[in-house]
Amino acid sequence: MAGNTFGKIFKLTTFGESHGEAIGGVIDGCPSGLKLDFDAIQNELNRRKPGQSEIVTQRKEPDTVEFLSGIFEGITTGTSIGFIIKNTNQKSKDYSHIKDVYRPSHADYTYEKKYGVRDYRGGGRSSARETACRVVAGAVAKQLLKEVKINAYTSSVGDIFLEKPYQDLDFSKTESNAVRCPDSETAERMISKIKKIKKQGDTIGGTVTCVLQDVPIGLGEPVFDKLHAELGKAMLSINAVKGFEYGSGFCGAKMTGSEHNDLFNEDGSTKTNLSGGIQGGISNGMDIYFRVAFKPVATIIQKQDALDSSGNIVEMQGKGRHDPCVVPRAIPIVEAMAALVIVDYYLHNGIYN
Amino acid sequence: MAGNTFGKIFKLTTFGESHGEAIGGVIDGCPSGLKLDFDAIQNELNRRKPGQSEIVTQRKEPDTVEFLSGIFEGITTGTSIGFIIKNTNQKSKDYSHIKDVYRPSHADYTYEKKYGVRDYRGGGRSSARETACRVVAGAVAKQLLKEVKINAYTSSVGDIFLEKPYQDLDFSKTESNAVRCPDSETAERMISKIKKIKKQGDTIGGTVTCVLQDVPIGLGEPVFDKLHAELGKAMLSINAVKGFEYGSGFCGAKMTGSEHNDLFNEDGSTKTNLSGGIQGGISNGMDIYFRVAFKPVATIIQKQDALDSSGNIVEMQGKGRHDPCVVPRAIPIVEAMAALVIVDYYLHNGIYN
Amino acid sequence: MAGNTFGKIFKLTTFGESHGEAIGGVIDGCPSGLKLDFDAIQNELNRRKPGQSEIVTQRKEPDTVEFLSGIFEGITTGTSIGFIIKNTNQKSKDYSHIKDVYRPSHADYTYEKKYGVRDYRGGGRSSARETACRVVAGAVAKQLLKEVKINAYTSSVGDIFLEKPYQDLDFSKTESNAVRCPDSETAERMISKIKKIKKQGDTIGGTVTCVLQDVPIGLGEPVFDKLHAELGKAMLSINAVKGFEYGSGFCGAKMTGSEHNDLFNEDGSTKTNLSGGIQGGISNGMDIYFRVAFKPVATIIQKQDALDSSGNIVEMQGKGRHDPCVVPRAIPIVEAMAALVIVDYYLHNGIYN
Amino acid sequence: MAGNTFGKIFKLTTFGESHGEAIGGVIDGCPSGLKLDFDAIQNELNRRKPGQSEIVTQRKEPDTVEFLSGIFEGITTGTSIGFIIKNTNQKSKDYSHIKDVYRPSHADYTYEKKYGVRDYRGGGRSSARETACRVVAGAVAKQLLKEVKINAYTSSVGDIFLEKPYQDLDFSKTESNAVRCPDSETAERMISKIKKIKKQGDTIGGTVTCVLQDVPIGLGEPVFDKLHAELGKAMLSINAVKGFEYGSGFCGAKMTGSEHNDLFNEDGSTKTNLSGGIQGGISNGMDIYFRVAFKPVATIIQKQDALDSSGNIVEMQGKGRHDPCVVPRAIPIVEAMAALVIVDYYLHNGIYN
Repeated sequence: MAGNTFGKIFKLTTFGESHGEAIGGVIDGCPSGLKLDFDAIQNELNRRKPGQSEIVTQRKEPDTVEFLSGIFEGITTGTSIGFIIKNTNQKSKDYSHIKDVYRPSHADYTYEKKYGVRDYRGGGRSSARETACRVVAGAVAKQLLKEVKINAYTSSVGDIFLEKPYQDLDFSKTESNAVRCPDSETAERMISKIKKIKKQGDTIGGTVTCVLQDVPIGLGEPVFDKLHAELGKAMLSINAVKGFEYGSGFCGAKMTGSEHNDLFNEDGSTKTNLSGGIQGGISNGMDIYFRVAFKPVATIIQKQDALDSSGNIVEMQGKGRHDPCVVPRAIPIVEAMAALVIVDYYLHNGIYN
Repeated sequence: MAGNTFGKIFKLTTFGESHGEAIGGVIDGCPSGLKLDFDAIQNELNRRKPGQSEIVTQRKEPDTVEFLSGIFEGITTGTSIGFIIKNTNQKSKDYSHIKDVYRPSHADYTYEKKYGVRDYRGGGRSSARETACRVVAGAVAKQLLKEVKINAYTSSVGDIFLEKPYQDLDFSKTESNAVRCPDSETAERMISKIKKIKKQGDTIGGTVTCVLQDVPIGLGEPVFDKLHAELGKAMLSINAVKGFEYGSGFCGAKMTGSEHNDLFNEDGSTKTNLSGGIQGGISNGMDIYFRVAFKPVATIIQKQDALDSSGNIVEMQGKGRHDPCVVPRAIPIVEAMAALVIVDYYLHNGIYN
Repeated sequence: MAGNTFGKIFKLTTFGESHGEAIGGVIDGCPSGLKLDFDAIQNELNRRKPGQSEIVTQRKEPDTVEFLSGIFEGITTGTSIGFIIKNTNQKSKDYSHIKDVYRPSHADYTYEKKYGVRDYRGGGRSSARETACRVVAGAVAKQLLKEVKINAYTSSVGDIFLEKPYQDLDFSKTESNAVRCPDSETAERMISKIKKIKKQGDTIGGTVTCVLQDVPIGLGEPVFDKLHAELGKAMLSINAVKGFEYGSGFCGAKMTGSEHNDLFNEDGSTKTNLSGGIQGGISNGMDIYFRVAFKPVATIIQKQDALDSSGNIVEMQGKGRHDPCVVPRAIPIVEAMAALVIVDYYLHNGIYN
Repeated sequence: MAGNTFGKIFKLTTFGESHGEAIGGVIDGCPSGLKLDFDAIQNELNRRKPGQSEIVTQRKEPDTVEFLSGIFEGITTGTSIGFIIKNTNQKSKDYSHIKDVYRPSHADYTYEKKYGVRDYRGGGRSSARETACRVVAGAVAKQLLKEVKINAYTSSVGDIFLEKPYQDLDFSKTESNAVRCPDSETAERMISKIKKIKKQGDTIGGTVTCVLQDVPIGLGEPVFDKLHAELGKAMLSINAVKGFEYGSGFCGAKMTGSEHNDLFNEDGSTKTNLSGGIQGGISNGMDIYFRVAFKPVATIIQKQDALDSSGNIVEMQGKGRHDPCVVPRAIPIVEAMAALVIVDYYLHNGIYN
C-alpha cells in the first residue's frame, strides 16, 4: 500500500532514514503562483528541531531544507516540489550496540519481522526524524491557508494538565516557553516535571490540543472521508500517538443528548460547541478543536531487558540523546498535519483555485 | 475527494439515503474462490438492524441484502460485487416537519451549506442507515479472515463502565443481552440506564471496545498508513464517533517510559501490552485493542430550539423512532470496519493470495 | 488493484455480469445542484443498446437505468449516485455449450486462469454489456460539460474509410444512419459491407474518431496524468480496442519537425493542429481529436476450433446473437469515456465549482 | 490530480526541472530484501543520457543517480527509496531568448496558460529530462522481474521501417548501433536518415516497438485497469508520444473475425498472436508486443515564427543542442515504463511477495 504518501490533491510523499544521507519529500499538487516565505518554513523546522532547549534532546541538527524543484524565482510553478534535509549528525556508532537488539516498545522488532531487514541506525525509517518533512510540507500548506488560524499547544505533561479551556488562552504565548504551553504558570510546572523525569533517566507522555479557527463551512467528504476522520488519521500517523478525540471527545460518551446538543444562534453559529466545529463530518464554521495523546518515549536511560535476534533476553541501556518528553517538539508537527488535511479539502472544494 | 470509498485493495464504495429506494454498495478487489456464507452475512445485518430489542429504535426494517454480481454459484468470481438493501420503511411524512429546519447537532445545516440542497428525509445520506452497507462488506471481509478473531462489545454507557479488562471477559456472552456487554451484571445496569434515559425522551452516549486476536505480525504501512491510523480513520468515519484510542491510549499520556514499555518474552511476545499490539504502526502479534467514543444521539423526544432556513429560531420536538443509545447497534459496525482495515493489509501483503 | 473504478474526483465504480440479475454502478464526486435530464441519459443508453438496427445484434434489452440515490427531486445532492440496469434478457441456455470451452480470442481463458472460476454466461464480466454503465455516467458527465462539444463517429469499417477530415463533416448527420458515419455516401458502403460480412457469419473491425470542441485551455496533469494519456487509457479500457492515436498520431511519426510544428496565430490559436489540441499533455484550446481502433468481434457464426478445460481442441460454432461490427454501438461509449476524462479535470481545476 | 505519481503499489513520484538544481523521485512500495545492482541501474541511465552518440543531442550530462534512502548495505529495506540526479549542465543563457516566447508545438504556451508562471529554462518540467527518473525506477523494477524479458527497439524512423517481425530479430543486437535497431542493415539507413535530417537543422519522428516475454498469465485488472490500458497510459505519458497500439493494433481494425481470431493449441498457447498476449485485458502467457509513435522534436534549427507573451508573432531560431530524433534515447524509457506497469500487477497479485 506504499504508505509514504499523505493527501489526495495536495500530496506529500516522504523518504529518508534517521542516519541516511538525507531525508526529504515531494509535494505534488501545490497550486502555482504562491510566493513562498522561506523564513517561515525554516522557522517551523526550527520549532521541531532537536537541541532547541534543555528539555529536549541535545542532539544537534541544523535541519536546513533545500528545495530542488517546483519553485522559480521564489514562486511555486504548479509542478512537483522536491526537497531534502541533509542528515549532518549521524553518530552511527551510538547505535551499533542495538544492531541485533530489539528495544522494548520500539519498532525494531516489527520492522525486522515485516521487512526481514532494517536500517537499525537511530531507528531508521521509524525514527521521528521523518516528521521534519511533514513540517516542511505543512509550512507550505499554511501559506495557502492564510485566513485559517492553526494553533497547537501542550495541554498536559504526565499528570499536569492545563485546566483552562482554549478560549481563555493567549496563543501568542505558546512560543514563550520551552514546553509550548500558553499558560506560563502551568508551563513552569510542566518544565520542572520534565526536568525531574529527565534526571531519573526516564521519559513522560503528554497531550497536545490543537485549535483551528476561521475554517470555512463545508470541508469534509462523507461518508468515509469525514473531516474529523482525516484529522484523526493524520494525528495517529505521528510517532508515539496513542489517541485522538475532537470536540467533546471521550467525555461526550458520558453525556445525554439534551446536555450535548449545540443549540443554534440565528446566524447559524452555535451557543455551545461540543461538536468541535464538525457536524456529520463537515465543518460548520465554529472552531475545530481536538486533542492528541502521546505516549512516553520508549528510550530511557535506565537498564532494561531487551530481546536479541537470537531470542535471548539481554540487558541494555539507552544511549544516544533522546527526548524526555516529545510533546514540546510535537506542536509544529500537529499543526503541520492539520494544515495538510485542511489544504487538501480546500483545493478539492476549489476554494484556493 | 469523493469520500464514499473505503480501502485501497479491498475497496468498498457505498451509496444510498435513508429514505431513497435502496442503499447499497460495490465491493471491488475481493479475491475469487471464496465460498460465501450468506447466512453469516445476513446475521451481521440483523445485529445492526433496528427493532431488534426494546432499547433500540422500534423502526422496522428487514435489511435484507441482495447481491447482484461478482458471485457465481455461491462463490466469488474476483469481479466487483454489487449489492443493494431496499428501504422498505420510508415514512417520509415523519420528516416533512424538518424540511426547512436544521436540527441541533445534526448534519442538516452542514449538508445544506456544503451542497446547497439535501434530501432531508431521515437525514438522507447523513443517516446512520448507510452503515448497513459497511456491515455487509465487513461480513464478507470476515470470511477472508477466518483465523482472526474480531470481538467488539459495549464497554460503557454514560457513566456506567465495564471495569473488567477484556482478558477477563467471555466474548461468547456479548450477544446474550440487548446492550452487547459480555458482563451480564454490568449489562443489566446499562440496560436499565438506557431505559430510564429513553423514558425521559433523552439519549445517552457510550464507548465500544474492540479486540483483534491472532492478527499476523507485519500489518501496517508506515509512515502515514500505520495500522492504528487506518483503524482510527475507519472508526472515526462511523456516525456519532468522537474519539479513538488504542492500547494505553490517553492513559498512556500520563505514564513514564519505564512504566509504559512492554518488555519482551524470548518468543517475541511481550509481558505487558500497553502498545495495544502495534509498534511503529505495524502489528506485533499481540492482541490489538482499541476504544471508540460515541456521542449521544442528537434526536431527543423533548422540545428544543432549532434553526429554520430563514434564520429563525423555532421550537421543535424529535418525532420518528430513534435510538436512545447507538452503542448496542454500533458493535457490528465497529467489527465490520476493523475487518475492512485488516483485510486490506492482508491482501496487500499477499497473505490471502 | 480493484480495477472497476474510473476517475479520481468524478469517480465511476461499476459492477455486473452479462447474465446476472443486474449491472450497475456508483458515481461518486458528482457536484450537487445539477438538474438531471433523464431523457438525455436514457437516450445515450438507447444509442448503445442492442437491437436498434439490422446491423447490430438482434438481442433485445430495454436497458432502462434506475437511479437509487444521490438525486432528490431531480437534482443531484452531491452524495454518491447509485444506479442499476436490470438484465431482462438472460438466455443462459445460449451459453451452456461453452461452459467448459474457451472461445478463441475471448477472455474465457484468461478469466479462468486468473480467477480460477468464471461466470461463463455471455462472457460474464468480460461482456461489453458493462459499458452500458459507462454510458450512464458519461451522460451525467456530459450534463456538467454543456459548453464542450463531444462528437464521435465511425471513421472506418474494414477497408472502407471516411476520407474527409472531421472539419468537413456535419456531426448532426451522425445519427441519421445505422452505422453512425456522418457522410451518408460512405455510410451506405459501410452498412452494405457489414451486411455482407454478417451474411457470411463473420465479423469486421473498424475505427472511431472522436472530436472534442470548446475544451478550456489548461486541462491535463503532467507528467504522468497528461490529458492524452488519460484519454488513451479510457479508450483502451473499452472492449475490443487495439489502438489509440491523437492529433497526427502514427502519421506524425513519419514527419519532420518543420512539417509537423503548428505555427501560432496572434490569439494563441494555431494555424494547423497536428498537435490535436494538446501540447505537453495540456489542452491548448484547439480541437482535440483522436482515433480508436476496434478489432472484429471474436464470436463468429462459423465452425472454428476452441479449447476445452481438459485441454482438448473441440470444434464449436458461435450461437447467440452477436454484433457483426461493434463500431456503431461503440460511438456513445467513446463519447462517454471522453466525457468522464474531461469532467474529472474540470472538477480538479475548480472550473465547475 | 497531482499528476507526478505513477503506479498504485510500486509507486514512482518524480520532481525536477531541466535546469533546476536536481531532478529526482521517490519509489514507494518496493519490496524489501532486493539486492540492487547499481551498475545495471546506471547503465540504463547511460542508454538514455545525452551525448552518447553523434545522432543525439551533444549536450553533456553524466546523469549519475544518488540514492538517499530505502537501501541499507545494498539491499532494499521496504521503505521509500529517495533518489536525485544533479543537473550539472545548466546553460540557462541558452534559453534567455525564449523567456517571453512560446515556441511552436512546445508546452511553453500551455504551461503558461495553465499555471500562470513557468520555469522557461530548457522547457522546465515539460523537458524530457524528467524521464531519467522513470529510467531509474524502471531499472529497479526490472530487477524484481528477472524472468520477464523486456526488449524495445527502434522500428521506424520517418519512412524507413524495419519490416521484419520481432520474431526474426536478435534483440542482443539492439545496442550494437546508435539508433537501437536490431537489424544492422535497416539501422544503417535510419542513421543516415537522421544525419541527413540533422544537417538540414530539422528533426524526424519514429516508432518504438516493445516486446514483453515470459510474462505470467493473469496480469491485468478489468474493467478499467486492463493490462493494455495501463501500458497505453504509461507510453502516452512519455514526451512526444502520439499513439499506441498492441497486437494487431490499427491493422486489426481492417480484419474480419475469421482472420483475426487466435486459435488455441492444447496447452493454452495460441497458433497466432494477433491478440498481442492480452485477452480481455489480462495477459494470456503469449508474447506481449506493442508499438509507440513519437512525433518529431519540435525544436528545429531553422527560422520559424513563434508567439511572444504580448501576442506578437516573432521570428525565432532554435538554439541549444537538441535531438534530431528522440527514438534512440526513448528505447530505455519505453522499457522502463513497461517494467513499472508489470511490476505493479506483479505485486498486486502477490507474485513477488
